[in-house]
Amino acid sequence: MQTIIIGSGNVAYHLVKAFKQNNIEIHQIFGRNKAELLKISTEFNIPFSTNQLEDAELYIIAVSDSAVENVSELIKNENALVAHTSGSLPMEILKGNYRKASFYPLQTFSKTKNLDYSKIPFFIEAENQIDEKSLFELASIISENVETSDYERRKYIHLTAVFACNFVNHLFARAKEISDSQDLDFNYFIPLIDETVEKIHHLEPKSAQTGPAVRGDERVLKLHEELITDEEHLKIYQLMNESIKKMYQ
Amino acid sequence: MQTIIIGSGNVAYHLVKAFKQNNIEIHQIFGRNKAELLKISTEFNIPFSTNQLEDAELYIIAVSDSAVENVSELIKNENALVAHTSGSLPMEILKGNYRKASFYPLQTFSKTKNLDYSKIPFFIEAENQIDEKSLFELASIISENVETSDYERRKYIHLTAVFACNFVNHLFARAKEISDSQDLDFNYFIPLIDETVEKIHHLEPKSAQTGPAVRGDERVLKLHEELITDEEHLKIYQLMNESIKKMYQ
Repeated sequence: MQTIIIGSGNVAYHLVKAFKQNNIEIHQIFGRNKAELLKISTEFNIPFSTNQLEDAELYIIAVSDSAVENVSELIKNENALVAHTSGSLPMEILKGNYRKASFYPLQTFSKTKNLDYSKIPFFIEAENQIDEKSLFELASIISENVETSDYERRKYIHLTAVFACNFVNHLFARAKEISDSQDLDFNYFIPLIDETVEKIHHLEPKSAQTGPAVRGDERVLKLHEELITDEEHLKIYQLMNESIKKMYQ
Repeated sequence: MQTIIIGSGNVAYHLVKAFKQNNIEIHQIFGRNKAELLKISTEFNIPFSTNQLEDAELYIIAVSDSAVENVSELIKNENALVAHTSGSLPMEILKGNYRKASFYPLQTFSKTKNLDYSKIPFFIEAENQIDEKSLFELASIISENVETSDYERRKYIHLTAVFACNFVNHLFARAKEISDSQDLDFNYFIPLIDETVEKIHHLEPKSAQTGPAVRGDERVLKLHEELITDEEHLKIYQLMNESIKKMYQ
């Protein structure tokens, strides 16, 4: 299937890389950001353009959610299949007389970070079964973990991911502010963080809970509140502890 | 050094195991919970007691914070060194005419989960340099990562750990509630969670942030709020997003 990837951000970069690693040809990468497109084009030896979108059988739109609709209007090829990569957009956001689909990789992507694509779950949706099957097969070349999923389900997958990834990373960032404030090396906490995650490979997160709130240790909770000088830290501290207490009461 | 470990919970269990794995002899394990002591005693072939605390050179008190003071009063041996394992207690909580210390392993412990003890940071404090040196050497047999740390520093280490471990695990538990509510297999999210943590081995957590809040994607934030039916989930969702926005504004 002749394929064009639209976008030059983290998701586009890693899709291109995953495709190339698995010998799936990419006909063109297309987008607005010439500098980023040039980098990807050079690294993977793929033609790019900022203004001339080539003809293809499949277009994968890997741009920010807010840009998907506008970008989708650039595709005039009515014989094409067009898929977006968003967890929180319906297929109908795609505006054109082509066949519509969604091709959603559940992962957090940073350009500088290598990934094992075989483990990434892909969630596929298409307007017809033939397209669904072909996208399923395409994703299956990259990943061992491919499912079909409609928009309703995809929205909840994305919401869960925000809790389990985006919020978790933010806690790491806030934790680092605390350790930085005392000149503590954040590397002290890496084995703890690794183990926190390793645990939930084997235990239900609810059963793996430790810490003062689940023990009901009010002395430590009060001690910590006295240590915290940052208003945002205190809000997080209090809300998370209240939530833990409620879960186990 | 003839050593007794007091306690039969998660920390006591793993200290006993770490000591045994490194051929450090334990003279006795002592505590209130006979069933748990018996299990540890049987697994590691160490005498236990619930009422007859033997004489030893070193007592390590690995019980819950709220029990440390009372337990410390049971030790009548004035020639002993007594260390607690708490991140949030001063040495002075120990009530007896013996030499006092702290022996704090920074990790989250569950009995059913194996651990690589060599990676666990230990933070040591003692009233005199000789005791500090001997506890440092003891911890160094178990771990490659031993530091001295006074109470002020230890409190902040513990506070950071609560954000980076206890709160993170709670987010996993809340995320699982969301995925369970839609019959989504939580295993879908394991590669995402693994990568979220793998990233901060290489990137500053602040630079690794992804998700709708850091992108300022108000449409997705609103969409998610409409999906959330649980009051606790909504409070966490809103507070974490506000905190992310403030960090990057």
